[in-house]
Amino acid sequence: MSTLHVALLGFGTVGKGIYETIGKQQDHLRAVIGKEVKVSTIVVKDLGHHADYQGSAKLTTDMQEIIQDQKIDVVMEAIVGKQPAFDYLQQCIIQGKHVITANKEMFAAYGCALQKLAEKHHTKIAYEATTAGGIPIIATIQQLLQANHINNIQAILNGTSNFILTAMRTDHLSFDKALEKAQELGYAEADPTNDIDGHDAYFKAMILSELVFGRKPAPENIQVTGIRDISSDFLQSACPKRIKHLVTLARTDGDIICRIEPQALSETHPLFAVEGVDNAVHLQTDILGNLTLTGPGAGALPTASAMIEDLCTIVKEEQAVLPIEKALAPHY
Amino acid sequence: MSTLHVALLGFGTVGKGIYETIGKQQDHLRAVIGKEVKVSTIVVKDLGHHADYQGSAKLTTDMQEIIQDQKIDVVMEAIVGKQPAFDYLQQCIIQGKHVITANKEMFAAYGCALQKLAEKHHTKIAYEATTAGGIPIIATIQQLLQANHINNIQAILNGTSNFILTAMRTDHLSFDKALEKAQELGYAEADPTNDIDGHDAYFKAMILSELVFGRKPAPENIQVTGIRDISSDFLQSACPKRIKHLVTLARTDGDIICRIEPQALSETHPLFAVEGVDNAVHLQTDILGNLTLTGPGAGALPTASAMIEDLCTIVKEEQAVLPIEKALAPHY
Repeated sequence: MSTLHVALLGFGTVGKGIYETIGKQQDHLRAVIGKEVKVSTIVVKDLGHHADYQGSAKLTTDMQEIIQDQKIDVVMEAIVGKQPAFDYLQQCIIQGKHVITANKEMFAAYGCALQKLAEKHHTKIAYEATTAGGIPIIATIQQLLQANHINNIQAILNGTSNFILTAMRTDHLSFDKALEKAQELGYAEADPTNDIDGHDAYFKAMILSELVFGRKPAPENIQVTGIRDISSDFLQSACPKRIKHLVTLARTDGDIICRIEPQALSETHPLFAVEGVDNAVHLQTDILGNLTLTGPGAGALPTASAMIEDLCTIVKEEQAVLPIEKALAPHY
Repeated sequence: MSTLHVALLGFGTVGKGIYETIGKQQDHLRAVIGKEVKVSTIVVKDLGHHADYQGSAKLTTDMQEIIQDQKIDVVMEAIVGKQPAFDYLQQCIIQGKHVITANKEMFAAYGCALQKLAEKHHTKIAYEATTAGGIPIIATIQQLLQANHINNIQAILNGTSNFILTAMRTDHLSFDKALEKAQELGYAEADPTNDIDGHDAYFKAMILSELVFGRKPAPENIQVTGIRDISSDFLQSACPKRIKHLVTLARTDGDIICRIEPQALSETHPLFAVEGVDNAVHLQTDILGNLTLTGPGAGALPTASAMIEDLCTIVKEEQAVLPIEKALAPHY
């Protein structure tokens, strides 16, 4: 049985989740793609942070060990921020490697550029894990767009904000206490700015906009408000409605509109019952009607699941195309 | 631009929905698959029922006009009952045609046999429209199974039953009055047995069981109870819980268990808020966690959407494989 060589870029919570899941699901992966999946190299920022590492993959701080290694077929990236991720992935693509990313900030900024580069170099780029955690929203939208136009999306895309709003409402906590609880439970970072000020939801909304509408909204059509200024009293006064941090993306008169803001949802709204760290996406389409997907919005395992789904899809697509290359373009 | 020749088997509500949608989405389909999609032949039971037909596709009662027509690439089947659908589709597959079906009763009985036959004859068979209406549940499960085991499914799979239970609870109707309302609105057949006695949900559960667990439950592990004996008083007395007609599929100690029966769901249950003719499927997986999909459970357009998604997937897979055949097996 042949071996698929994989490199990881980043070995934080998500990177470790991918590494452990690939190890644990080895038999399953063999059955699905007919290959052994081997993580050969992991690039980290600081070896000192991984002194207790016991795995068999090589840990290194030198990205060139991935880029220059001809054996590595796929690079799975789970680091934070636009750079150096964008530079690294460009170099991987130029070397003919497939790329799977969970990096929403980078992909929101450079997704189109990376997709064009990948097309040019006959490699694949997949990004299921960037948006809505474990919910297979990218694959589902790609599936629906075959027969439908999607005209409107409403979504809860930040699990931390949804957890805080849920805890404030159900446990009558102040914003600060709910944030503290989220941090204790590992649902919020020490610096929660990205989550509570709507930046994280904004990155995901831009990725969805490019997928669904083929482009981002014009800057003047984007409005982002976080949840920092919401009081427990305000949440209670909205009852029986529930305040949710809602992303709305809509096509109106040729423009794309994006609003990210707290909104009061009534009991019959499809996202009313989405509580805690869950995410959900409600799609309005022209043929199918309305579809709602609800599931875990973040976490190491849901993210690992999404990235491994991407890995299998890429391998299967390659297996279909490979014989063409072999037969028609032996020089390729 | 080349043309994809499609035949329809059945021209009732769903068949007409497919025909009209393919016509309406012609530009969209051209962009997605790079081909003109032409419905050339429609097989009906009785030409007299279609005296007002004005379309350009040929109407016929002779199935051989599809089976023997070498030009027809794909057959889309939307008739009812195991036979003659199974015989017809077998003959189409043997002639090398791809097959897309919305026929849950037939596919629940013969899905495995048709899939094996299709594999033998290098054709594709797709069945997204058999289960959960417009919800892309087959594609989603295929996507998730790449990285996950699915251990448990809870679902609302019969829109008619869900509509009746919702109307009885919210409008305080008797079962008979609610059924009458469903029939008036076109949500229930003149003979509603299949829906209200759980047969329709059973067909869909068997299709999901084969997809998720690789086999059906043993007959002694299947229990089916419909909604015929439920009274409005019983629904009111369950309040604040809601009685839903629930399908449960689970793997326990190597056995597959299937229970289809009315159950009281509390407010926090993921299917509590699924009302009216909607369907929903809640999947419990080992890596990703829990995922819920909610959408239209039936209807001509959602079914047409699912079948056109299948059509596009088949064409794209064929476009990837075709050059292999051309290059490696010119005799094929």
